[in-house]
Amino acid sequence: MSFPIYYEDTDFSGFVYHANYLKFFERAREHVIGIDFLAQMFKERLHFVVSKAEISFLKPAVHGDKIWIETTAKIAKSPVVEFYQNAVHESSEMLVKSVITIVLINDQRKPQKMPPAFIEHFERQAELINKGYHL
Amino acid sequence: MSFPIYYEDTDFSGFVYHANYLKFFERAREHVIGIDFLAQMFKERLHFVVSKAEISFLKPAVHGDKIWIETTAKIAKSPVVEFYQNAVHESSEMLVKSVITIVLINDQRKPQKMPPAFIEHFERQAELINKGYHL
Amino acid sequence: MSFPIYYEDTDFSGFVYHANYLKFFERAREHVIGIDFLAQMFKERLHFVVSKAEISFLKPAVHGDKIWIETTAKIAKSPVVEFYQNAVHESSEMLVKSVITIVLINDQRKPQKMPPAFIEHFERQAELINKGYHL
Amino acid sequence: MSFPIYYEDTDFSGFVYHANYLKFFERAREHVIGIDFLAQMFKERLHFVVSKAEISFLKPAVHGDKIWIETTAKIAKSPVVEFYQNAVHESSEMLVKSVITIVLINDQRKPQKMPPAFIEHFERQAELINKGYHL
Repeated sequence: MSFPIYYEDTDFSGFVYHANYLKFFERAREHVIGIDFLAQMFKERLHFVVSKAEISFLKPAVHGDKIWIETTAKIAKSPVVEFYQNAVHESSEMLVKSVITIVLINDQRKPQKMPPAFIEHFERQAELINKGYHL
Repeated sequence: MSFPIYYEDTDFSGFVYHANYLKFFERAREHVIGIDFLAQMFKERLHFVVSKAEISFLKPAVHGDKIWIETTAKIAKSPVVEFYQNAVHESSEMLVKSVITIVLINDQRKPQKMPPAFIEHFERQAELINKGYHL
Repeated sequence: MSFPIYYEDTDFSGFVYHANYLKFFERAREHVIGIDFLAQMFKERLHFVVSKAEISFLKPAVHGDKIWIETTAKIAKSPVVEFYQNAVHESSEMLVKSVITIVLINDQRKPQKMPPAFIEHFERQAELINKGYHL
Repeated sequence: MSFPIYYEDTDFSGFVYHANYLKFFERAREHVIGIDFLAQMFKERLHFVVSKAEISFLKPAVHGDKIWIETTAKIAKSPVVEFYQNAVHESSEMLVKSVITIVLINDQRKPQKMPPAFIEHFERQAELINKGYHL
């Protein structure tokens, strides 16, 4: 998943505002999981929420840079999924590294075991990711 | 309603990112209407949505500036409310002027006549605004 | 310019947060003008700023919708450019209409006549837009 | 530093969008360091940038909730400062815990030893924080 840095992404230091990487990573996760799949889950009142984020900001990006989000996922122990997500400059320089842990919850905000249909769907997607197919 | 300009509000031009004024105006409207009142409305599946916005950007603000949001409201014709909202620098210089039109809708997204309880609540708030009490 | 609606774009009403359309329109303008061109301008300490925005919100969009930003531009009278920008649902339904007026300023925040190189560049882009080529 | 949750802070799950806590923490740091002080630093082309963030999301917040940001700071080893920042619900329930590491850089993006004036300023502020004075 690749995109340019827009005005909206920067702050007055000239660099990408740090919190925006969490947005970029989340956009990439939505593509990996599948936006239609998430919309369907929402109808069943299930949500993924971020439970933990560890982010290392190595180099800043500026307006006009093109960056790439690399995503690798691992079903750690249902209902927990770990995403290893990096923001990479088009020059291949690593900008930001992260481990984002997400959990499936229901609308009473309780962790929810992942339904088999989800695990199957997810493994299909994960396989694509591991094969380096860009979702 | 007064607050300082943070890093997050700026873009790399050094000025407040234009779309953020719509956020500032909305925060001010939430205070004028009452955040608890809005939360209650939401439970009854009613929402205010912006149907129209006319915004003139006269002068830019920068990081560290303190700005003030002036809000005047008028129930145009139920379910329509017009908010005249300005962003004013603490030096009293006018930065941004706007007219924001909002409409009450239900969860089928249909315009909804305002319940009498809301009009009463709103008039009480509007009176406070007109008296110059800062909500 | 087409993209899906992400979690980050919505608010708890379930719809796209109204201020985000200004971001979508700005992203589309950056593509129309050219992100590299804007980065070059910035080095010469020139900026486009929004001086006026008139936006009509006709229909809401929700998470998972795919929307399209249509952009038509007109050099009104240098240094002013008017952009007619619409957000259109992939079903072709019009969601949001806008007229966004931008002005070229220098780093003393003074309006700046557009350099001939810019007008030429812009006309080339505008021609592409008018031909319906999607930038 | 205390504030209510606005529409803009939520996503369509109904909860505060996770990336927004990084914004809340940054607003709180700006108050702790001093917005005027940061503006002055910027004139000298010095910036604080986030180099690392570890965030645990324990409980979600919803529209209308009032939350409180607790901030404790420690000059780890110049030019590194560690902020321990928590988002706490007005009911005293812990929502989000974080350790945010920031670094001072110059405009060549090189880490910069903190000037004595800054350390003094910072220690004065830190003392206020440790005394529980809410900045």
